[in-house]
Amino acid sequence: MRISGLAAATGVPVATIKFYLREGLLPQGEATAPTQATYDDRHVQRLRLVRSLVEVAGLSLAQVRRVVASIDNPPSTWHQLLGVAHWAAVGLGDGLDDDVDVSAARSLVDELGWHIDPRSPALAQLQRAISGLADSGLTMTPEHVRAYAEAAHDVAELDVDSVPTTSPAAAARHVVLGTLLREPLLLSLRRLAHEDVSASRFADLRPPAPPGDLHDDWASA
Amino acid sequence: MRISGLAAATGVPVATIKFYLREGLLPQGEATAPTQATYDDRHVQRLRLVRSLVEVAGLSLAQVRRVVASIDNPPSTWHQLLGVAHWAAVGLGDGLDDDVDVSAARSLVDELGWHIDPRSPALAQLQRAISGLADSGLTMTPEHVRAYAEAAHDVAELDVDSVPTTSPAAAARHVVLGTLLREPLLLSLRRLAHEDVSASRFADLRPPAPPGDLHDDWASA
Repeated sequence: MRISGLAAATGVPVATIKFYLREGLLPQGEATAPTQATYDDRHVQRLRLVRSLVEVAGLSLAQVRRVVASIDNPPSTWHQLLGVAHWAAVGLGDGLDDDVDVSAARSLVDELGWHIDPRSPALAQLQRAISGLADSGLTMTPEHVRAYAEAAHDVAELDVDSVPTTSPAAAARHVVLGTLLREPLLLSLRRLAHEDVSASRFADLRPPAPPGDLHDDWASA
Repeated sequence: MRISGLAAATGVPVATIKFYLREGLLPQGEATAPTQATYDDRHVQRLRLVRSLVEVAGLSLAQVRRVVASIDNPPSTWHQLLGVAHWAAVGLGDGLDDDVDVSAARSLVDELGWHIDPRSPALAQLQRAISGLADSGLTMTPEHVRAYAEAAHDVAELDVDSVPTTSPAAAARHVVLGTLLREPLLLSLRRLAHEDVSASRFADLRPPAPPGDLHDDWASA
């Protein structure tokens, strides 16, 4: 098909397709004349992949390029290939800089016995989460933190088991979108679970009676 | 103390304190002269609460006003009081509009047997999460979804059990900050757990060998 057919098949404007061709996210078609090329179903598939990484997952072009390169030239293990997609999804390409302090996060994952690359970008995210809680005085017991880790691991096992290994492209797409699009699922379920648990614990419990003189008691935090 | 003392005690600029006074987020001090008032430790506490809701949790002034009103004039149960803080944290005050379609979310929480107010704002968030997954063809098995719900419920139980019921203000602060600040903790742990699980499943598995002619295979998604 010509470039206009590729646009019609995917709903992606011709100008955007030309941009992706220039950026190397989409391989050139087969030249049929000096200014004309023909495209096939593989271009349709690749274009759909690039679109979903850009439009749905919100990846930058640099991140998409990294994912596409790992599909066209797969590293030696599935773990590395999925890792490229995962790191792209969570916002970094080459991993953490050496000077980022992730010691608290590192201690926690070591304690959990998890196998984590020292340069994994999610370590910095965990470190920020821990610091944010500490800064606000929201200390958590070790059991509370461990429950978070176990809950996260439980869902991660099913996530990883659901990755299709039919092709690197299908796997990479699933890792990127599954990592990102299931986050709102987990967060909204947790918020609803708060309501359910609160209903079972606190539905019949009365808070302290409003004081006679409101002003006397408004800051009893 | 004078307003300048209140500013010194909390690190909040006088202009900001005056703004909170005008907005009703902070009660007036005791008038000692036509243009002078005196403030006490309760103002310090309330100011710290307002600051953490605005600066740390990122709540709007309308949401902070709602939380503060529920503290000064508590509803009849702890569940309702915590609910005001929780709904403020997750972004809505009066709950969902009637015309928002949350049928898929409603079905899921009903199936789980959770007690959820029909106007709970997190229902809309769950609905959007479910739609986003469906739109991208990332279907999940019922077991997979249930694992997400159970993981969410496990952490929610510990979250709710850790809410201090020493005072409405302390409880509301904990609910708002705990709801929001533990979300990055859960998400970063899930991302790290992905890496751990992938390492155990895929570290020794080779992806399909790169084809001799790269172009022949790049779109085998």
